[in-house]
Amino acid sequence: MKTNPNFASLENSYLFSRVAAKVADYRRRNPDKDVISLGIGDVTLPLAAPIVEAMHGAVTEMGSADGFRGYGDEQGYLFLREAICEHYVKKGVSLDTREVFVNDGAISDLANILDIFALDTTALIPSPVYPVYVDTNLMSGRKIIYMDGNEENGFLPLPSGEKADLIYLCSPNNPTGAVYSKEQLKLWVDYANATGAVILFDSAYEIFVKDEKLPTSIYQIEGADTCAIEFCSFSKTAGFTGTRCGYTIVPHGLGNLNELWLRRQSTKFNGVSYIIQRGAEAVFTDEGMKEIKQNIAYYMENAKLISDTLTDRGIWHVGGENAPYIWLKCGMDSWQYFDHLLETANIVGMPGVGFGANGDGYFRLSAFGSKENINRAMRRI
Amino acid sequence: MKTNPNFASLENSYLFSRVAAKVADYRRRNPDKDVISLGIGDVTLPLAAPIVEAMHGAVTEMGSADGFRGYGDEQGYLFLREAICEHYVKKGVSLDTREVFVNDGAISDLANILDIFALDTTALIPSPVYPVYVDTNLMSGRKIIYMDGNEENGFLPLPSGEKADLIYLCSPNNPTGAVYSKEQLKLWVDYANATGAVILFDSAYEIFVKDEKLPTSIYQIEGADTCAIEFCSFSKTAGFTGTRCGYTIVPHGLGNLNELWLRRQSTKFNGVSYIIQRGAEAVFTDEGMKEIKQNIAYYMENAKLISDTLTDRGIWHVGGENAPYIWLKCGMDSWQYFDHLLETANIVGMPGVGFGANGDGYFRLSAFGSKENINRAMRRI
Repeated sequence: MKTNPNFASLENSYLFSRVAAKVADYRRRNPDKDVISLGIGDVTLPLAAPIVEAMHGAVTEMGSADGFRGYGDEQGYLFLREAICEHYVKKGVSLDTREVFVNDGAISDLANILDIFALDTTALIPSPVYPVYVDTNLMSGRKIIYMDGNEENGFLPLPSGEKADLIYLCSPNNPTGAVYSKEQLKLWVDYANATGAVILFDSAYEIFVKDEKLPTSIYQIEGADTCAIEFCSFSKTAGFTGTRCGYTIVPHGLGNLNELWLRRQSTKFNGVSYIIQRGAEAVFTDEGMKEIKQNIAYYMENAKLISDTLTDRGIWHVGGENAPYIWLKCGMDSWQYFDHLLETANIVGMPGVGFGANGDGYFRLSAFGSKENINRAMRRI
Repeated sequence: MKTNPNFASLENSYLFSRVAAKVADYRRRNPDKDVISLGIGDVTLPLAAPIVEAMHGAVTEMGSADGFRGYGDEQGYLFLREAICEHYVKKGVSLDTREVFVNDGAISDLANILDIFALDTTALIPSPVYPVYVDTNLMSGRKIIYMDGNEENGFLPLPSGEKADLIYLCSPNNPTGAVYSKEQLKLWVDYANATGAVILFDSAYEIFVKDEKLPTSIYQIEGADTCAIEFCSFSKTAGFTGTRCGYTIVPHGLGNLNELWLRRQSTKFNGVSYIIQRGAEAVFTDEGMKEIKQNIAYYMENAKLISDTLTDRGIWHVGGENAPYIWLKCGMDSWQYFDHLLETANIVGMPGVGFGANGDGYFRLSAFGSKENINRAMRRI
């Protein structure tokens, strides 16, 4: 059988799978150890009450003759797309509901969006960054140009003349927690419009931005509606990592990309569960948003505790102010540091090199744990 | 922007989108008409009580500190994969839980499975058949060889020497309702093993097979575990078209395909909602299966009513015995017949040509409506 030869260019396992396997192995060997995970960016607080209530309501509907729903609207139910549009209005961004596509989490669309582009498109990808961008481009055999994130540019690379068709930006950044300013994003938008590139903007962590001067959507930047696709998710916003829902914005201003994406999605995807979409809708109610913001504040207190501890210990780090990640300098091979931290302090983090070559020597800690766990972990450092 | 040039080879719109648009247009022009849909294969009966109960339980868990779940197992929760394996044991098929991949509906995996094969693989696809196979191969620029389904072979084409890498089979068939016998499937399995091809077997309608001599899984055929991937879904089995869950079997016997698919899924997909997986698990309980079989019996009575009416009117047709679809000969261009039936009888069906060139002159009716609607529709024919 002729399998996809590009898979051979991938690392043996996806970063998060490899970490999970290592932790499982350690736990098997040390069943009595109290392992604390500040690794994979997985939320821990339960779903907010208004979301739970909305989903109970939808489950009941699905069990009744009158309330039952089969296949939904191919872009997602209008009630949810309208709620998403209203969320953008609060950011000063006006969208048409046909520009909104509901999905089962940002990862799917970030991966599948490549379907609508030619195979000989070139991708410009920061290093370090969320590994899905690199892996999906490798799987499809696309050429990748890496741009360096480093201490000098605060892990926020800016345009420097590279010719690419697709530009991946992630802000607030995973793994570094760095956030582009409006002025910096404007440089990218102008660059994309000038060169005809498309920006694939991952805003999965927008809810964590506290500094009101910082952008929470690329469409807050003039000109972005002719060059940028934005991916967002309820995973971190509302604790949906196990509930699964997100959305993608493909503006009409991007030629026929909206039409191509609709064709792709209506052929290869049959939408998100009605029950889950009702839960997602509740995120945007006053009650939902209030409870969610409390959860975000809880995680950000954790981030501050981690950041303060590292400062006390004199460990160089960024992030944790407008993002739930803290990016620290570990001063050694980052898988070695992973093993070291796991063995000596029973703490799981993410090796920076897993996010790209420029991440080696760095390490990501996540603020998503419980306060108690973060406290205990910090005492061990 | 260099978009995917292969999209130009697709029909302007996906079949089901086109039908939906036509019906919406008719309803707008004729708001007082009582339109009955026997078109898109969408279920109408509410979810069974044990499924509803299980999902309520899971929603409550997700709202509690102790019960909350974040990212799940990358292949699907073990409780669900074990339940699926037990379902196969009843068919006489033994699977390893690592051969089972839970998804958000068969359509996603039927489309995305192409990711793990080389782009220069050739697909052998029956005509007529579920259009997703053709569209997804066209989107990726693959070569397609069509095999003729027709009255002579009962719309069940058999191997005839074509050299292909991927062989799509759908049994019970959508749209014709025809079902391969074990002897016929054995011919395909032997052919695939002899030529090194992979069979992509769509068994989404297996639950409708009443005749115990007919196979409900390709793994009931000796040798299939070294050449076949099977796709199944809760959509039709348990009314999950709006709830979204399915599963794919990739046996270890298929070289490294299981490993490649795991790599694909763990990179591009983050699994199905915990809530939905708990609902799917309940399908396989005694209470769940009992209620589901009652629903299937209800739909199959509808199928019989449609079939009997067509027989009375002397209209040639197949299907409706071991599948929820009836495939009739309309004796004219099938889009013309679509318009005719909509305008004169206010009945929506599916034009056969939408399922491939060999479907022209035929028409698909679905038995998924309510008994009352089917009765009224049949009186109009």
